[in-house]
Amino acid sequence: MKKFEEKTIHSERLYEGKVINLKVDNVSLPNGKQSKRELIEHPGAVAVIALTIEGKIIMVEQYRKALERSLVEIPAGKLEPGEAPEYTAMRELEEETGYSADKLEKVISFSTSPGFADEVVHVFFATGLHRAENGAVTDEDEFVELLEVTVEEAQGLIDNERIYDAKTAYAVQWVKNYLSDKN
Amino acid sequence: MKKFEEKTIHSERLYEGKVINLKVDNVSLPNGKQSKRELIEHPGAVAVIALTIEGKIIMVEQYRKALERSLVEIPAGKLEPGEAPEYTAMRELEEETGYSADKLEKVISFSTSPGFADEVVHVFFATGLHRAENGAVTDEDEFVELLEVTVEEAQGLIDNERIYDAKTAYAVQWVKNYLSDKN
Repeated sequence: MKKFEEKTIHSERLYEGKVINLKVDNVSLPNGKQSKRELIEHPGAVAVIALTIEGKIIMVEQYRKALERSLVEIPAGKLEPGEAPEYTAMRELEEETGYSADKLEKVISFSTSPGFADEVVHVFFATGLHRAENGAVTDEDEFVELLEVTVEEAQGLIDNERIYDAKTAYAVQWVKNYLSDKN
Repeated sequence: MKKFEEKTIHSERLYEGKVINLKVDNVSLPNGKQSKRELIEHPGAVAVIALTIEGKIIMVEQYRKALERSLVEIPAGKLEPGEAPEYTAMRELEEETGYSADKLEKVISFSTSPGFADEVVHVFFATGLHRAENGAVTDEDEFVELLEVTVEEAQGLIDNERIYDAKTAYAVQWVKNYLSDKN
């Protein structure tokens, strides 16, 4: 899977941050010409499609500074170094929603912005939900509100753009297919 | 939709690039504490779910430097300043695949990485495909290969991770629902 490979001639890391790094690579293209690639390094993340026994999807509303507004999203969080994605998924679900899951299955992994970032989101499907002992315990700089929505309600949130991110849009389509395959 | 708003105390743009900018904002949180947000500015993009009369999805394979490998994706491209997303969608479809579409409908817009980037992808559904007069004419630093796949074949490409990005994963789920609603 190295078709049309762009070989790195020179790479410079211009910023190392708390969450992301920025590097600029000079690359040699398949036709021998050169170009510049501006690239973001990100630790990766998990996201959880948590479905209640009534067929409702667990979502959280939170402020997203990048978009200067709040979004309704499926629970998600960054991978900590050395943490297995399954573990992060269980932890984030519990911290953000107060739910634990008896069963966690891998759905898919995908790159969010392959044009400029290496961020990969690992998506899991959580069922057998029950209230966790400790309830929701978010990070000290994290403020979230819990919602439980049917696929139809989720479609309404998409229509008015309160749901407005790729992983949650994916999740709603995935659940629609999941429920229709089941019936 | 300003719930849990994070007010900007100070914003500094640390890098202005060809495609992305990096800024770091100091913000005041709902509890009065302060935090830092590392944010990427991106012009936004379009993506096209182009479906042939035989029910095949048009895809392109291209190298993605951020991931150091090639991916199979639905046709997509960055918004040019002042260009309407519909126009960009038609242009990118034609340039990358050599197909024109008689009909273009808006499917959804979504943020790809709301945690750190303002990039929004506008997704369109293109039908009534026919070979464009000029064929595919990609940018001089762009190398792509055309594929036409059924939903089942797309699922195979997801399983072996040749399809590995959020917008294409979304597109495959969306087409699956679209075809099942139609039947």
